[in-house]
Amino acid sequence: MVDSLASKAAPRSAPGETSDREESLAFEPKFGPDGLAICVTIDASRGDVLMVAHMNEAALRATLATGRLHYWSRSRDALWRKGETSGQTQTLVELRVDCDQDAFLALVEVGGDGGACHTGRRSCFYRRVESDGDATRLAFVEPPTTRG
Amino acid sequence: MVDSLASKAAPRSAPGETSDREESLAFEPKFGPDGLAICVTIDASRGDVLMVAHMNEAALRATLATGRLHYWSRSRDALWRKGETSGQTQTLVELRVDCDQDAFLALVEVGGDGGACHTGRRSCFYRRVESDGDATRLAFVEPPTTRG
Repeated sequence: MVDSLASKAAPRSAPGETSDREESLAFEPKFGPDGLAICVTIDASRGDVLMVAHMNEAALRATLATGRLHYWSRSRDALWRKGETSGQTQTLVELRVDCDQDAFLALVEVGGDGGACHTGRRSCFYRRVESDGDATRLAFVEPPTTRG
Repeated sequence: MVDSLASKAAPRSAPGETSDREESLAFEPKFGPDGLAICVTIDASRGDVLMVAHMNEAALRATLATGRLHYWSRSRDALWRKGETSGQTQTLVELRVDCDQDAFLALVEVGGDGGACHTGRRSCFYRRVESDGDATRLAFVEPPTTRG
């Protein structure tokens, strides 16, 4: 289990410098003042980014204990077992942590309809930003959903 | 340029439901109460996740205007032009936005030594979490840096 989840306010090292937190093998996840850390979730087989969400300590513990992705829903203010209502479950293949241990990268196998986005798409990042200097608009990368 | 950067507290839709923000082509980025949004940065050619950082409105504008990635450094409380001191510049290839427009995905070409992490590695996610139920430790995915 997670041994030490205490939040420490140690700043990131300057370029070229490293700290114990960055080079050690001790897992010391750093949650923000709101108790949350970012989790980027990618499809383990395809490698593309599916979604970005938040984890608190409970979500991290539940994810590691069950092998199923859990997040913290800021809008519902509740622990969120991914797929609980949508069926879009995510099975953990590998969890990585970044240099200063305040962000996670989850490699997952997606269940259900294969999507991760509540709009029904595979990825939440289905639009690109197009800027021509005068105007900024979006364009679909993945087509509009057939749901909703 | 970015037309509307006003933060709106509209909650994410329920599964299967969509909102205008999610299906329209209007770019309406949503910054948090702290003025920040998450940016996940990936290598445009390899597709792997390099880093996670934050953007405020100024960083987003500067990124779109110059084609070079700018972030907001929370530790230095300052606009951060990636590579300014390290040489690890990032040229924007494509910017995507997620369903509720509060997170960005930047596809970039990396300059300098090809790294994105201040420890000298390509990616900030160079360690994986290994949990056996009793103890949780880290293991290197990318070898320890030769710097520092």
